[in-house]
Amino acid sequence: MAKIPHRLYLTEDQMPTQWYNLRADMPAQHDPLLNPGTLQPITEPELYPIFCKELTHQEIDSATRFVDIPEEVQEIYKMYRPSPLCRAYHLEKALGTPAKIYYKFEGNNTSGSHKLNSAVAQAYYAKEQGITKLTTETGAGQWGTALSEACAYFGIDLDVFMVKVSYEQKPFRKAVMQVFDANVTPSPSALTEIGKKILAENPGTGGSLGCAISEAVERAVTTENCRYVLGSVLNQVLLHQSIIGLESAIAMEQLGEYPDVVIGCAGGGSNLGGLIAPFMRDKLTGKANPRIVAVEPASCPSFTRGKYAYDFCDTGKVTPMARMYTLGSGFMPAPNHAGGLRYHGMSPILSKLYHDGYMEAVSVKQTDVFDAAVFFAKNETILPAPESAHAIRGAIDEALRCKETGEAKTILFGLTGTGYFDMTAYAAYHDGKMVDHVPSDEELQKGFDTLPHIPQNEGI
Amino acid sequence: MAKIPHRLYLTEDQMPTQWYNLRADMPAQHDPLLNPGTLQPITEPELYPIFCKELTHQEIDSATRFVDIPEEVQEIYKMYRPSPLCRAYHLEKALGTPAKIYYKFEGNNTSGSHKLNSAVAQAYYAKEQGITKLTTETGAGQWGTALSEACAYFGIDLDVFMVKVSYEQKPFRKAVMQVFDANVTPSPSALTEIGKKILAENPGTGGSLGCAISEAVERAVTTENCRYVLGSVLNQVLLHQSIIGLESAIAMEQLGEYPDVVIGCAGGGSNLGGLIAPFMRDKLTGKANPRIVAVEPASCPSFTRGKYAYDFCDTGKVTPMARMYTLGSGFMPAPNHAGGLRYHGMSPILSKLYHDGYMEAVSVKQTDVFDAAVFFAKNETILPAPESAHAIRGAIDEALRCKETGEAKTILFGLTGTGYFDMTAYAAYHDGKMVDHVPSDEELQKGFDTLPHIPQNEGI
Repeated sequence: MAKIPHRLYLTEDQMPTQWYNLRADMPAQHDPLLNPGTLQPITEPELYPIFCKELTHQEIDSATRFVDIPEEVQEIYKMYRPSPLCRAYHLEKALGTPAKIYYKFEGNNTSGSHKLNSAVAQAYYAKEQGITKLTTETGAGQWGTALSEACAYFGIDLDVFMVKVSYEQKPFRKAVMQVFDANVTPSPSALTEIGKKILAENPGTGGSLGCAISEAVERAVTTENCRYVLGSVLNQVLLHQSIIGLESAIAMEQLGEYPDVVIGCAGGGSNLGGLIAPFMRDKLTGKANPRIVAVEPASCPSFTRGKYAYDFCDTGKVTPMARMYTLGSGFMPAPNHAGGLRYHGMSPILSKLYHDGYMEAVSVKQTDVFDAAVFFAKNETILPAPESAHAIRGAIDEALRCKETGEAKTILFGLTGTGYFDMTAYAAYHDGKMVDHVPSDEELQKGFDTLPHIPQNEGI
Repeated sequence: MAKIPHRLYLTEDQMPTQWYNLRADMPAQHDPLLNPGTLQPITEPELYPIFCKELTHQEIDSATRFVDIPEEVQEIYKMYRPSPLCRAYHLEKALGTPAKIYYKFEGNNTSGSHKLNSAVAQAYYAKEQGITKLTTETGAGQWGTALSEACAYFGIDLDVFMVKVSYEQKPFRKAVMQVFDANVTPSPSALTEIGKKILAENPGTGGSLGCAISEAVERAVTTENCRYVLGSVLNQVLLHQSIIGLESAIAMEQLGEYPDVVIGCAGGGSNLGGLIAPFMRDKLTGKANPRIVAVEPASCPSFTRGKYAYDFCDTGKVTPMARMYTLGSGFMPAPNHAGGLRYHGMSPILSKLYHDGYMEAVSVKQTDVFDAAVFFAKNETILPAPESAHAIRGAIDEALRCKETGEAKTILFGLTGTGYFDMTAYAAYHDGKMVDHVPSDEELQKGFDTLPHIPQNEGI
């Protein structure tokens, strides 16, 4: 066959018109969300005050294998998708590896990441339901930016609670969201009861995604015609993000390739769950057997050092409880620059797959991640987001192992976004001021102590 | 024919393998560069202390119509090119115009702009000649970033003199260049004699491209095995940037389209000259007759209010003299946020074409530019660089005229880059603190007074 191009873009008519719901092919479903009051599985109507109806349905529905992407959503996807499937020839050469490295690059839109894929869908369903205001949280700012873009497009008002440490590290993220008319507040804030409580208990806190989620949820349920939306963790988000994997699979098939290993960074699981979806399907249905690897920060190691337990999705304990790999909703991660990965929990779908042995996970230190990020930037012309660079680290390590063994493996990783708003972190790395933090067992135990004391968690 | 896609990417084998030298089809050439000492046309060897030999040749050679793109340069182009030709369906709809709006988007690489097209070529020729160090200037930081990327790739040491006002407005630009190991100095600086002189005369100056050029040239000619490179104005740069127009023309032909009007922002002319190249060729050879429109800032109006005269390319008057539209090398533009357009002169090729009536030019005010930028971002998912937004303003104005007249014109404009490092400007716009500055005739006259008093300028 012809030489594989450096960048492969599908044509518009090759783009998927349906999302893929991985749950439909899972031999066993994750344990249900629980109503924290009754400890009973939560029903769709119970979620209506928080989520739009259609999104609630997508959250609960594990049976429908393919979901039509609404035409209006497809229309927006066509402005920044398909994203390219890239062959990293230059990286391969610089590493001297026999491995073939591919990456799916999601950074070519103003949010700078894959987050727009779900933001557009969620804003669309909100608008269809007549919702006039949305609230959300953002860590690194990618999700907040993406949702700001989507809300500006559909004319929906938006309140963003931004993790305070990211708000301070990334001063220009706020400005981007304001271009799209979003209201941005550092979290914890005095705008909500839960924010006030967290501030009273821990005045100097830099916040966390879990804490910002609490504030956004409280704001949604106490505001007229308002709903809450979330950029990761949720099943609906993984559904929307399946577009990443579906495009990747089509592109790889066109190239006559198939990955031996698929690698993604893992914070709440949005990118990872989307990227791996069709490949995990092949694995679950016996069609192929790729390795699936999650890469997470050593400073916030949900998969590799967390408990598989029921937990709240937020610090303020206002959300339903999900069974997932978690460090405890009270775990306060060190200020890792990869703000998008500073989350105590993990997607219930991915947690279940990991627990059942379908996935691997590794954790990596921050300075090793930035080594990989800079090496990648110099060879592939893209400056990666710190979050994305976790996957690069994983892919480079895999490629270096191939160099030792002489195996010409095919590696596919997800390059979720660009690092243009992460220059404080790059400057710290450049100046030798970046600190690695790996929580001690005692620090982790403090987080685990905040897990709900419910029968379902007994013996964990 | 089938519906035109939102984004058209050429395949790798459709990419041009030669640059196009517009001069070969011009009925009359621009006046030659002059040696400021002798006032005689400069020869190639006289330029060797400043430029690499191959680039010097490209600078002078007006006869060769097509120049092979070296394979190593093509290899890098394939990492971030072809850039997409975009149909602005969403912008058209939001404007309610019958016009068809296309744009060529050059922002999908870490430099965030088209500048990488020439940076890669110039660094390549330097490396081929065994040059170990390069110097340059940068305004907005796009060129500096692009050249940093290219130099990191080829292992060349780089000194960047960055216009002080941009250095201060864009603190993170320095950090990006440092990722690629460049040495960045705000200009004017105390590192050069000319910098010291300018600082002594005008201690509070925010600098200008012309001033930074002087410093970079001085540094190059006083440093061992070092050369100077420039990201705009020069003929060689327009040659390399022809890749933009060539790809656009191939893509439009595939779509069965041809532009009635081609619009580009104009600072030194690198993007504009590259974008229009094949369309200007059609015009010069009688094959077609598209309108060609330059859009420049009202604060630095070289085309629309400048003189067509011989002038230095820099403030320190160390470069050869070029005949071009100029505000005088001593003109100090107001701190417009579009730092890449704050240049007193203009490409000699474009100046000649404009002078001979083949092009039009308009100037636009900064706040009007940002109105267009934000409107565009909300509708097309791309946050434009302020420089690029000048072209957007031009295209929107053209489309609105079509709305009045009912004409369904085909508009093509160049979207040169992204605005991720311009959030200070966007925040100022958002907060209503952006100031429009249009120089008075008296201010312009002060600049004109600095034009060289040479026989060639008599009567101007």
